[in-house]
Amino acid sequence: MSFFPNKISIRKPDDMHLHLRQGDTLKIVAPESAKWFSRALIMPNTIPPINNSERLIAYRKEIEEATLGSGFSPLMSFKLYPNMKEEDVIKLSEVGAVAGKLYPEGSTTNAEDGVKSYEQIKEALSAMSKLGILLAIHGEKPDSFVLDREKDYLPELFKIIEHFPDLKIVLEHVSCVEAVNAVINGPATLAATITVHHLLITLDDLIGGGLNPHNFCKPVVKTPKDREAIQSAALSGNRKFFFGSDSAPHPETSKLTKSGSAGIFSAPAAFPLLVSFFEKNGSKDLLEDFTSRFGAEFYNLPLNKSIITLERKERKVPEKFSTIVPFMAGSSLEWDIL
Amino acid sequence: MSFFPNKISIRKPDDMHLHLRQGDTLKIVAPESAKWFSRALIMPNTIPPINNSERLIAYRKEIEEATLGSGFSPLMSFKLYPNMKEEDVIKLSEVGAVAGKLYPEGSTTNAEDGVKSYEQIKEALSAMSKLGILLAIHGEKPDSFVLDREKDYLPELFKIIEHFPDLKIVLEHVSCVEAVNAVINGPATLAATITVHHLLITLDDLIGGGLNPHNFCKPVVKTPKDREAIQSAALSGNRKFFFGSDSAPHPETSKLTKSGSAGIFSAPAAFPLLVSFFEKNGSKDLLEDFTSRFGAEFYNLPLNKSIITLERKERKVPEKFSTIVPFMAGSSLEWDIL
Repeated sequence: MSFFPNKISIRKPDDMHLHLRQGDTLKIVAPESAKWFSRALIMPNTIPPINNSERLIAYRKEIEEATLGSGFSPLMSFKLYPNMKEEDVIKLSEVGAVAGKLYPEGSTTNAEDGVKSYEQIKEALSAMSKLGILLAIHGEKPDSFVLDREKDYLPELFKIIEHFPDLKIVLEHVSCVEAVNAVINGPATLAATITVHHLLITLDDLIGGGLNPHNFCKPVVKTPKDREAIQSAALSGNRKFFFGSDSAPHPETSKLTKSGSAGIFSAPAAFPLLVSFFEKNGSKDLLEDFTSRFGAEFYNLPLNKSIITLERKERKVPEKFSTIVPFMAGSSLEWDIL
Repeated sequence: MSFFPNKISIRKPDDMHLHLRQGDTLKIVAPESAKWFSRALIMPNTIPPINNSERLIAYRKEIEEATLGSGFSPLMSFKLYPNMKEEDVIKLSEVGAVAGKLYPEGSTTNAEDGVKSYEQIKEALSAMSKLGILLAIHGEKPDSFVLDREKDYLPELFKIIEHFPDLKIVLEHVSCVEAVNAVINGPATLAATITVHHLLITLDDLIGGGLNPHNFCKPVVKTPKDREAIQSAALSGNRKFFFGSDSAPHPETSKLTKSGSAGIFSAPAAFPLLVSFFEKNGSKDLLEDFTSRFGAEFYNLPLNKSIITLERKERKVPEKFSTIVPFMAGSSLEWDIL
């Protein structure tokens, strides 16, 4: 027997990790998130990066214009950089930044100028801790073997926790069993986002059949055991785990090349996929906590008041949005927005 | 101090696992193997497959025409299929087949019609054992997780060994530590080929930076530990391990797509890369045994009489051969043919 009827109405969800890019791409992809989500934490790894208050204001305006009338609110983050000053963090706080993002040098798209060690950003982390701004981490040690990078980043994470016991930290897009366990066993100041792709797929979907560049992201999807740990965490009702899509569009030409870009554009399919996953494995309450409560609570944000209603209705994921191929392109979803 | 002078002359090598395709592709790629190798075991997974004596004869003729004047000799194999009869194996033997290839169903390119269990080919294996035809195996269990497929195939391999104790078996393109150990600890009738890509690269080179479809093959390259086991085997002087490139050309359009083809076209770079690898880690004698002796001995073939001479000379691997991108395209090789 299904936990879900043929319609489901729940508190509108938040996406606590989202790449919207800029310009024409943003205009195409932002409405796909605004359709499903009430708010999203917007990643700052644009070119140039969002790392000062002027850029943050301009970027937020660009997003608001692209989603006008949808009720969507972007939650803004900024990109941490070596030797960032307290006063710069204060200014960003004053214009509404809710998180600073730490990209270890070389870890992913546009992270060539990232941070080598948390010691380079101590002043900023200290300011964030005082101001109640969260630290969002791409937790990978870039010079480790690709499947070990997240696990090997954990010692650095533990050092940050030790030095900044009051700083709230989100380990983003958690991808391996060791990291899941570190979050479970860590302090209450530590949480993690889970993407829909790390929840659903493994290396089999990237390299197990034909090579599928549209399932390539960083951190890479891993083994069935890792996926099992992620699924258990999402279904556990543990408030340290909440949804962040890491939806990350790239034009098809950047994917189908000899050095393909990392990133999965999951926004158009993510929420219906979550509904199906929680229907099969969890419950409506667990879904709502995961997508619409735990993230907001960890960020000290009010819960969304609006409701989203979906109906059970087969629908195909479009093959493309302009030049961008979405996650699960061409496959059938079981739920659609009413 | 280098083990090698600025020139090296050794017995011309054999490539005991090679895909040459057909038609125009064959005309482009066959000379790239004939340039370096005296002989090669030609894989039979063409369309239609090489699975009877007429096709074997026609395919050998096509290869001989494409390599005319080079001194290259193709060693022919055939593709095993369910319920293959003894008389078919005898006919193939009479026209010079030296090996039968077992592709588990769905394991790689053109293996959709493969074999589900060795029980389906018992009559053929029995005939091969009597006739001295070797069994070459793509050793992967296709429904296992991609990184476990070779390991999970080993029980099937052990069953074949048990039922056919006199049958010589080559576990092709060995890719994981468990399979390397199985060959080391197995009977004298069991050997393995090692490719240049499994010897040199890992998942880092496929999914660790940008996604590189030109480093995608089956079995997939694996972890540093697996590579270490393969390197140790190649350098050990154990006559159960010898060179087979598994060079497998695909047009670029089949690589750069949403379900990219598995196969690395390594023929143009393989031998110079092996010379460099054995220079740094082994010796000229170990190189010669690995490339020019152990394979021939296992196949009961006379050693090649001709000699190949290389000089230390930097040369770039071409970006393309017609529409085919080779292994290490654009990188520098340290050795060239004199």
